[in-house]
Order: sequence, then C-alpha cells, then structure tokens
Amino acid sequence: MVEGKINEIHGWAAMKPGLTVEPWSYKPRSLGEHDIEIKIEYSGICGSDLHTIKEEWNGTAYPAIVGHEIVGRVITKGEKVAHLEEGDLVGVGAQVYGCLQSDCNACSRDLDPHCPEKVFTYNSKYSDGQQAQGGYAEAVRVDANYAFKIPAGIDPVYAPPLMCAGVTVFAPMLRKGVKKGDRVGVVGIGGLGHLAIQYASALGAEVIAFSHSPNKREECAKLGASKFVDTSNKDEVDAISHTLKYLFITSNSKSNQYNDFVSWMDFEGQIVILAMPQGTMEFRPGVFIHTEVAITGSLIGGINVLKKTLEFSAKHNILPTIERFPMSKVNDALVHVDSGKARYRVVLEN
Amino acid sequence: MVEGKINEIHGWAAMKPGLTVEPWSYKPRSLGEHDIEIKIEYSGICGSDLHTIKEEWNGTAYPAIVGHEIVGRVITKGEKVAHLEEGDLVGVGAQVYGCLQSDCNACSRDLDPHCPEKVFTYNSKYSDGQQAQGGYAEAVRVDANYAFKIPAGIDPVYAPPLMCAGVTVFAPMLRKGVKKGDRVGVVGIGGLGHLAIQYASALGAEVIAFSHSPNKREECAKLGASKFVDTSNKDEVDAISHTLKYLFITSNSKSNQYNDFVSWMDFEGQIVILAMPQGTMEFRPGVFIHTEVAITGSLIGGINVLKKTLEFSAKHNILPTIERFPMSKVNDALVHVDSGKARYRVVLEN
Repeated sequence: MVEGKINEIHGWAAMKPGLTVEPWSYKPRSLGEHDIEIKIEYSGICGSDLHTIKEEWNGTAYPAIVGHEIVGRVITKGEKVAHLEEGDLVGVGAQVYGCLQSDCNACSRDLDPHCPEKVFTYNSKYSDGQQAQGGYAEAVRVDANYAFKIPAGIDPVYAPPLMCAGVTVFAPMLRKGVKKGDRVGVVGIGGLGHLAIQYASALGAEVIAFSHSPNKREECAKLGASKFVDTSNKDEVDAISHTLKYLFITSNSKSNQYNDFVSWMDFEGQIVILAMPQGTMEFRPGVFIHTEVAITGSLIGGINVLKKTLEFSAKHNILPTIERFPMSKVNDALVHVDSGKARYRVVLEN
Repeated sequence: MVEGKINEIHGWAAMKPGLTVEPWSYKPRSLGEHDIEIKIEYSGICGSDLHTIKEEWNGTAYPAIVGHEIVGRVITKGEKVAHLEEGDLVGVGAQVYGCLQSDCNACSRDLDPHCPEKVFTYNSKYSDGQQAQGGYAEAVRVDANYAFKIPAGIDPVYAPPLMCAGVTVFAPMLRKGVKKGDRVGVVGIGGLGHLAIQYASALGAEVIAFSHSPNKREECAKLGASKFVDTSNKDEVDAISHTLKYLFITSNSKSNQYNDFVSWMDFEGQIVILAMPQGTMEFRPGVFIHTEVAITGSLIGGINVLKKTLEFSAKHNILPTIERFPMSKVNDALVHVDSGKARYRVVLEN
C-alpha cells in the first residue's frame, strides 16, 4: 500500500461562523488505491466558501477548510491510478467523489454532482465518516477521478476559477445546446458571470450582459458581450424584453426580480439559476402559462463536463480575470471578496 | 359580399360577476371574406368559463357569452374560404384569430395563442373593437382558419372538450416530445387530467395519476394510468419521489404544493403548468439548483397543434368522459361544474 507524503495537512480553517480563518491542521484520510495526493499551488475563492464559513447555508462542520478551486501537482498516487503521474499539474473542483456506476441515475447521465454517494470538496463527509477538507491548505487527497489534468495552454494561476465558476456556467450551456445566433443573457457580472459571457460568446451566441453596475459596460464588451443592459435603466431593459432564449442567473438575485427576468424572455425561453437565491422566490400566477418560459437550475458539472470545460477553455483562450493573494493573506482576500469588489475572482497562492 | 344568415345571435350571457347566465342576444360582426358562420350544436363547459363569468380573472366585459369548446355546422362561408364547405362539422377552440404571418414570432412557431394580434373566443376584442362572444349560443362567426373539421371517427358530442381541454394537455406533450417509456405524472383528475392520462398513455408513456380523491383510482386505470397515487397518502407519494420525467399540472393547485411537485421529479424533469394557480407560487431557494428540474407552462395550442390533436384523438380513440345538459339548463350545468362533481366534462346541447 502506498503511503501519502504529507501526513499532517496544514491549512486555514474557519473555527466558528464568521469571515475569519486561522491556521489549523488535520490528519488526512489514508491514501486509497484510487486516490492521489496533491501539493496545492493555487486555490480560488468561491462565493460558496464565504457562505459556508459564515454558516449562511445550514450546517457547517467546524473546523472547516474551504476552497474548491484547487490546482496543484500530484505528489503521490494510489496503486490503481492509471491516468495521472506524479508531477502532473491537476485541478480539483467542488466534488471529490461520486460512485460513477453505470446504474447510478445521476452518474450515468453526467450528473455526478447529484450522485447519492457524492462527496463535495469541503463540508461534506466520506462514507467512512471522515470530513472532507478543501483547498485553503498545503495539500489535499482526493479520488483521482475527480482530479483533472490542466491543459498545457492554460497558465496554472488562471486555472482554479475554471474548476468551479467555469464549469458551473459552461455545464448548462452544453446541456441545453447554446449555439450560434442564440440570444443569451447573463445576469450578474462577477466571478461566474464574466466567465459565462466568454463561454456563450465562444459558442457563437449573441450575449447580453445585465448588471446594476454601469461601470462594467466596457469590460463586458471586451469579454464578448454584444450588448450591456444597466438593469436600473428602464429604457435599456425594455429594449430587450421578450427576446432572450437563455438567461443565466449568476448572482444571488432577490426573489422579487424573477418576474422581471421572465419578462425579458422570448416564448419558451429558459432561465437557468446558478447562484443560490436569498429568500423565497415568488411568481405571479399564470406567468409560466402566458410565456411558456421555463425556470430551472444547474449544479456544477460532472467529470465529463469538467473535462470539456478545460478543453474548451484552452481552445478558446477563456481565462478568468483574477486578483492574486498569497495564502498567508487569505483573511484579507476573504474580506475583499465579501466586499463585492473583487474583479472578478481571487486566487490564493502557496 | 356574402351575408351571414343569423344576424341576431341568441345565447346565454353573464350580465355581472356570478355563476348565472341569462338569455341575451347580440348583433354579430359582419362576415369577412375569410370568416365562416357556424350553427352551434354542442358547447363544452371549461373551467375558464366559470373564472370569467365570476370575474375571478381581472376584467370581464359584460355581457359575456362564454364557451370555447364549440362544435357545429358551417352555414355560411366568406368568399375566400377554401378549405371548408357549408354543412361541414367543425370545432372551434379558445382562439378565433391570429395573424398567422411568417414574420410573427409566435405564429411562425406554432405558438399562435401568443400572437400579439390574437383574439380569444370570448372576453377578447377584435382589432376593430368588437367584442368576441363564445359558444353558449345558437351561432358564432369566426375566422375560418380557427375552425377545424371534426374527423369522421369522432362522435360530435364528444368533440367539444378536445377543442380546449384536449389540445391544452396534448400540445405540451407534442412540443416536449413525450415518448414511449417516459414516466409522466398527471396532477388533478378532472376535465384536463382525464384526457392527459389518455394522450400520454397513447404516446406510450408510463402514466402516474395523482389525486386527493382515492375514489378515482379505478377509473384512472381504465383511462390508461399505470399507477394511481393518493396525494394524501405519504407512503404512496414517497414511493414515486424523484422518478418523473414530466408532470402536467391540470388542477388549480395551491402555491405551497409546488415544492412537493419538484420532489416527485427525476433530475432535469419538467413540470408543466396548464391550469392557472391561485395565489403566488413560492419556491425554496436552491430547489432548482439541487434538482435541475424545470418549471414551465403551456397555453392551449396553435392551429397545427389543434389539427394534430384531433387526428391523434381519432386515431387512438381518445374521448372525454362527458355529462350532457340541454343548453336551456346551462345554469344547472354551471352549478354542477362549479361543485367539482362533473365527471369529467360537461357538454351543452342545442
């Protein structure tokens, strides 16, 4: 049996609800024959990390090392890992285990984030009861199926945001078949949204960026948007009403905005929710009948989708706009992300 | 110019909000060259009729002759009507005019109920300002494009409910491609639901009927349902959770039931709302992300869809279960429908 090399993993953990993490270490699970040990080089900060450490979603198990946009080198591999070698640069996203069985209703359909046996990268438990810990750390051990070679064309420091933000926005575009000429809206120009514009544009769609921050207008054009709609400007909003085929919601929109979103859609348009809304979503009676618009959502992406995301990103030179912080300044970075001022994704460097 | 034969149409109109209609007559619009005049033989009662006369939906223009499941004989046709002859037995549904232009974003996609120029069969205005009046009457004049020959295989008295209830449930099955082996749920076993079971079953789907009336269990089996779920029985409901590909909502479900509906669906399942819900619909945050279920709706069906509905009904011998009332007893019939006791659709006979 292969032993791991780092048997006490040092990282930055939230010890209680709040925005602060502190040095902490844990003994990793033993290295299974299908597992790899990764020395982490970069770790992105995702909005989910903040929701988790602040316990804005129910049930955070403290101490919690968050971070699910991990990029690093394989330093040890289990006996049965065939597709990776020591020294490979790999990325890990928000999921570290799925059953991957052909009779699994989720895994068999590239929906492994919904696998009944799924383990997410942090604040999630393996079947043996061990707590999964994430990427704000020196290392991590994961099932090798959930580690993906970073294509040579992608500068490693830009890779972390592709592992969660990237796949989250690209997965539903693939599944729904966004194509040349489709009119695609993106609500919220942040970590997810600035990538959504690039993916939809690379797929040939006509992209409309929606934001209440008019100062993002020029940048959206550079990212590939054909049009920018300032959501506080009624004329701009009215001009696009009933025209969108798809609308990707990448910000935590308030419940009362959803009826507006519907009014932007063409008949049979699809609204895809990618960021967890705050509060309850309410709809007026009949809105679905009179528009035939569909509202749905999407949760990250399975193995095959993540591979396609990395390939497509490399091919079309899709990169996140990032700000870099040393891992030792993780608390400053968290405050920066929490302020909403990050442009657009923060990457921690070991 | 061809003159119509019945120049004062006698019918039963609601004069004010309530459940009562009374004898009233109106002068019909002049017979346009694309119009036909129909002597009505049968007229179905739809839930929308009751909502309209009771003014439960905003803005009923009284006097209002409702009824949009009309079957009768062509007695006069305009000069340019080519596809119908005097004496033809035709049906008219809930729409009597659409522009049908190739550059119409609705009509060009078989979505003519959403045409900007649409005229519904009652409580709707033609572009010249004239009020459209419906089928609780001796006659009606409509655009011949919105009158459909009743196939020889369908007994005329059974045809009215196909014109609205039938097309309403069949249209989304066609558009979404319901097919052999799909697991399809139908909520609400009434005028729409008992037809939905038959159409889905004829398409080869495995149909699950949902009702809070366990006394409908046997009848649902006869209509083609593979399974009946008493929605007040937790074990029966739990047994089907996360298994449906489609769910057609044919009853005016309360807003708080929609989260339950989502829990019945397989990943990426589609919930299609066909009956106007009462009150505001509310969803828990994240329900769409964690299920990838879509919620949408559908409004009757365009010309081509109505034709397919009639053809498919004739071919598969799909007939509504009806109760017959003479037109003179229309007020008794309305009370009967309002009581929820009709099994399952009421047809008025002239």
